[in-house]
Order: sequence, then structure tokens, then C-alpha cells
Amino acid sequence: MTTRDDVRLARAYLLRVAEPPAVALGAFVGAHGPLDAAAMVRAGDVPGDVRKETTARYQADHAAEDCAAAARVGARLVIPEDDDWPGWPLLPLDNAVTRGLRWAGGPLGLWVRGEGHLGDSLRRTVAIIGARASTSYGEHVAAEFGHELASTGVTVVSGAAYGIDGAAHRGALAAGGPTVAVLGCGVDVDYPAGHAGLLTRIAERGFVLSEYPPGTPPARHRFLVRNRLIASVAEGTIVVEAGMRSGARNTAATAAALGRVVMAVPGPVTSAMSLGCHELLRGGLATVVGSIGHVIEAVGPFGVDPDDSDVSSSESRRPTDGLDAESLRVHEALATVGRSATRIAVDAGVPIERVRAVLPALELAGLATRGESGWQRAKAGTSWRRG
Amino acid sequence: MTTRDDVRLARAYLLRVAEPPAVALGAFVGAHGPLDAAAMVRAGDVPGDVRKETTARYQADHAAEDCAAAARVGARLVIPEDDDWPGWPLLPLDNAVTRGLRWAGGPLGLWVRGEGHLGDSLRRTVAIIGARASTSYGEHVAAEFGHELASTGVTVVSGAAYGIDGAAHRGALAAGGPTVAVLGCGVDVDYPAGHAGLLTRIAERGFVLSEYPPGTPPARHRFLVRNRLIASVAEGTIVVEAGMRSGARNTAATAAALGRVVMAVPGPVTSAMSLGCHELLRGGLATVVGSIGHVIEAVGPFGVDPDDSDVSSSESRRPTDGLDAESLRVHEALATVGRSATRIAVDAGVPIERVRAVLPALELAGLATRGESGWQRAKAGTSWRRG
Repeated sequence: MTTRDDVRLARAYLLRVAEPPAVALGAFVGAHGPLDAAAMVRAGDVPGDVRKETTARYQADHAAEDCAAAARVGARLVIPEDDDWPGWPLLPLDNAVTRGLRWAGGPLGLWVRGEGHLGDSLRRTVAIIGARASTSYGEHVAAEFGHELASTGVTVVSGAAYGIDGAAHRGALAAGGPTVAVLGCGVDVDYPAGHAGLLTRIAERGFVLSEYPPGTPPARHRFLVRNRLIASVAEGTIVVEAGMRSGARNTAATAAALGRVVMAVPGPVTSAMSLGCHELLRGGLATVVGSIGHVIEAVGPFGVDPDDSDVSSSESRRPTDGLDAESLRVHEALATVGRSATRIAVDAGVPIERVRAVLPALELAGLATRGESGWQRAKAGTSWRRG
Repeated sequence: MTTRDDVRLARAYLLRVAEPPAVALGAFVGAHGPLDAAAMVRAGDVPGDVRKETTARYQADHAAEDCAAAARVGARLVIPEDDDWPGWPLLPLDNAVTRGLRWAGGPLGLWVRGEGHLGDSLRRTVAIIGARASTSYGEHVAAEFGHELASTGVTVVSGAAYGIDGAAHRGALAAGGPTVAVLGCGVDVDYPAGHAGLLTRIAERGFVLSEYPPGTPPARHRFLVRNRLIASVAEGTIVVEAGMRSGARNTAATAAALGRVVMAVPGPVTSAMSLGCHELLRGGLATVVGSIGHVIEAVGPFGVDPDDSDVSSSESRRPTDGLDAESLRVHEALATVGRSATRIAVDAGVPIERVRAVLPALELAGLATRGESGWQRAKAGTSWRRG
């Protein structure tokens, strides 16, 4: 008989055995379950593409040590089998703009520093991201947006970097709201060093999380991989300041590829730190936001759904709670702008004929609407309940 | 036998006899010619709609005095019968966004202060407009854009107001380039008073022009009427700064309704003077420009057309010179973004079946291209010549 802890140890092993995003391993775990998948990886009994991802590390199992190291900083591994797993959407991601960061599902698990219900905290989220070499203008706007979103009950997600990220987290903390930092290193690694205190305060009010096992040092390629997590976990992503070559633009492109709402804050055309935002706008990848009103207009109303007002409780139900897996995937593939059934089928990985059957059912359930430009997600405020 | 001076005096009379934009009078002059039209207006022998426009002033003929008053400030009346008339496009304009400023043709004439060939000066033009209560940021950008456009041989058009307008004119003058001020009062009225010196410098390097007879005082409604001239004379209009309720936004809306390229300069979201620009962007009415490169990308290349390089000469030909009137109107209705044939028919006032015949001919001539979103104007640089 296997326990939840066996599954957790198996996923801890799998998270270290391949460098995220390990697409083949992810699919392998999806097909065989974490216990069998871990056993086969340990034995070297895997298909070629999984072997390629795991060959360098499969012989060493540090799962127990990783859990112990996490516990020393008050962290734990949250896995899809847990109640507070954020219910990661299935996100097919095979797109030129994501620079080869193909990613067919959620992470295998998340190392999480912080108390409380992770899934609830990530229910209403907006990412605020931007340049490390920010200006005082950008930091002011990031802090204001962070403060106002947190005041509205929205969880502010960012990357805990210097500059815009830090200002956004601080603004949210100043409002007493939860905020979530997604790292490109282990949750026990204080990076950047000057943000050690900030990371501790974030973990006290929200969460610091990472796919990378404890002790993993930061690396440039890990920030790009981390950026996809930020983009996917947030309903909308606001780029406050970005230079012409900026990780924030990469995150924004990923968010757009995921069908998330991408917003950019304009700034002086004389400021190099606003050029990346203006390029996002010029490319039609982002919409202009200058106020929280604009953000709410773009992402959809937060905190006005009378059926979903008790967001701090794990008892609260989502309108989608009663859907079967296929309908959930179709619903996840809907965005706030209209899309064709074909596009939805591709995004959801559900056959087109099933998508055509599911969409009208979602419409009846008040979860989807049909417009001139195709199908889109219904605004919050539906009174739909199953049974 | 009538002389050009008779025609000029008739048009001077007609320009004073009705307050622009006098749509019915314009059509009446188009139908009967200026001499007969003037005679009939003088006699009160006109249809009801023309009578309505002319009844208040038709008995007084100040044409000679107006010409004399203009001459005293070095100004003259340029009329469509003159060689240096700018070849005003036919612009049907019956659109909600223009707030009833319906306008079916060019002005009846233009009072012009300045030497040189008016038509040549207005061949390659960009309008730079914005708030009077501008910030130093906006004035800096307006002056820079004015300077750089003038350096590229583009005529900078604006309204000579305080703030953004003045900065744009000054930037163009500093580059030694021509610049054109379009007034909402007589060309002999120094308004605003603090810009008397600037207006003189503009007239020395370019033109100060107005539809209003000499001595006409400025008035709010005249600025709105003037704005449509700015919007129509310029290939593209850049809004540098604008508050939420701004004449510049009105000009931008008119320019968009005319199918002109509308551009907006973003600025700090914390600046009230950038809010109007951001609203233009949010509404999809304008594209972001942060540099002259962006402007040229939006408007089309200036000064790079090898067939049209001799822009200072009245001998130079436009690629459209050989087109018949109907084809010209269809060509004028094309924009830099794709449009349906139906929309083009409405804009051009040409029957849809003729539009469908003319468009492929324009395509063969290198003057139009067909894309996914419809028909659009071909970029400059075509080598098309007739005959």
C-alpha cells in the first residue's frame, strides 16, 4: 500500500532527476503515475526521450534530503495529489515566441515556502513584472499597482528580482495582501541576496515557490523557465518597465501564447526602460494599462462574484468544480477574447468534434459565451452550480 | 471675359458669406463654379440649404477689403484655380466621431501668409498636435519630433497654440525646415498673442493659413473646424500630449475618420497630460510612436521614393497624377490598414461596382495592395508611371 508521502518522495525525486521543463518526463509521469514513473526512471527503464532528460541524474535519489532541506526553511513540496494544489491548467505550449520552452502540463510539483492554502492564494492572480534596472517611475507604478490589486483581494505574483518585481511585492505587502514570488532557484536560496528579508516577508503573507529542488543555484536559463510559471499562474500579466531585451518581454510573450491577458504600462518615450513596454504595445501583444480600472477591465472583475466571495476559504467552490476533465480542459482553453473552436481544440488538446459538443454545454452552464469573434470565457458573476 | 482675379474675388466673397464648414455652399460652388455661385448668392437666388448658410452675410461683399487686409500682412488668397493649390482630396466626412462636422470637399480657398508654392509644401506633411497645458516632457518630444521630421524634409503642420503646437513649430524651424500653422482665426490676427513672433517666423519659412477672412477673431467652434483642416492636410497626425477632454483628441478622431494615420506618444501614466494619448491607444484609434522611425513606419517612407525625390519642385509628379477623378477618389479612400471594398465605396462616395473595378487597376498600377484584411494603399516607392 502506498501513502501520500511515497508519492511526494517520488515527485521530489522526479523534480531533481531532470531539469525543468522536462517535457518528455512530464508526459511519462502523466502516463504511468508518479510512483511507477519514478521506479522506471530509477531503473533506467524508460523511452529514449525520457532517458535523454534523466540520464545525467537518475542514479542519485536526494528526495528525502530535499524534503529535509526544505523543512529547515519552513518549506514543503506541494504535489498535484494534494488538496491545495493550484489545479494547474493543461497548457500546450509549442510556440516560436516561447523559444522552445515546450510545456505540455503543469509542473511535477512545487517547492513552497509559506503557510496556508496554495490553491486559494493562486485563484485570483495578476503578475506584475519588469526590469531590474527600473526607474523610480516604474517602481512607483509597480508599488501602486501591487498595493491596489492586493487591496482588491488579488494575489500579486512576481519574480522577487530587484527593481519592478520587488516594488510590486512590497506594494502588495504594504496593503497586507498576499503575494507570491516564483523563483528560478531553490526556495531556500536567498536570491537576490539583498531580498532575503523581502522573501521572508513574502513567505509570511503568501508564498515563495519554485520547481527547483532546494539548494539549486539561480541561472539565466532557469529564469526563462521560471517566467513560464509566472505567465501561466496569473490570469493577467502587467509589464511595468522593460528594456528592449528583457526577460519581462519573454514572460509577456509566453503569457500571450498561453492566451493570458498581457498588459503594458506606457512611460516616457525618452526612457529606455519603457521601450520594451512600447514594443509590446506596438506589436499588439499587450494592451495599455494606466490604472487598476484598466487592469480590471482587461482581466475581468475580481471579487465581485457573489458566489465566490469567500476566497480565503478552502470550502469555497469554483463554478467549474463540477466539470469533467474534458470540459475543464476546454474551459481552460477559453480566454477573455473570442477564439475559434479549432483554436480551442488545439489549445485544449481535445478533439474538435468533442469541443463542438462541450462548448454549448459550457454556454448553458454560464461558463462560456459565443460572440462574433468566437467563443470566450464568460465573465465572473455567473450563478451556475452543478446538481 | 473673366480673369483669375474675378474668380479670386468671388471666392473671397464666398469665404466670408458663410461660416466654414459651409457644406451646402461648398456643394453649390462645386456645381455652378465660383463666379456663378457668387452671383446667385449675392442675388439671394439659392436653394434653401445654401440660403440658410448665407442669409446672415450675403448682402455685404468685403472681398476687395479682405484682399487688401491680407496684403498688409503679406498674405494672399490661394484658390483651387491656382497652380499652387494643394490639390485637396475629396473627403466625404459624415461621421459621428467628427461631431457633425460634415465636410464633402476641400475649403473654398485659403488665406495664406508666406511665400513659395503651397502645394509643394503640403505634399509631405505630418501634423504634431497636443495640449496647450503641456508638460516639459511633451514639449521636449514635440520639439524633437518637429526637428527630426523637418530634417527629413517633412512639413510639420500644427495649430500654433501654446504648448505642444508651439514646440512642434519651433522644433521644425530650428531644423530650418518648413512648417505650416493652420489658424482658427484670420491670418492677420496674432493669436495667441504671445506667439506673434513665432507666427512671423513660421510665415518666413513656411505658411500660416486659414479659411477665415482677415480680421476673424478666434472662437472655440472655429478651432474644431480648423482641426479638420489639420487632420485632412496631414498624411499622419501625432498626438504628443492630450488630457482626457482635449481638442487634440478631436483632431485625432477626425483624422481617423478621414483614414489618415493617427499616432499617439505614450507618457507616464501618472501624468494627466498623457491620459488622452493612452485613451487613443486603448481605443485602437492610434498607434504608439516613440521615435521618428516609428512615425515613418506608420506613415510610409518620406523622401525615399526615387521617382519623387525632387519634392521642392512644382515639376515633380505624383504616382497618382495620371488617374481619373473616380480612381483618385478610390485611391484617397485607401489607408495604410486594410479596408473592405464596401467601406472604401462609402468613404470615396463611389458606387461599389465601380470600386470593385477600380481597385484591381490600382493594384496593377502599384498604388494599392490586397491583403487579408482588405485593400490598402501601397507603400511609396512604386515606379508606376502613366503612358
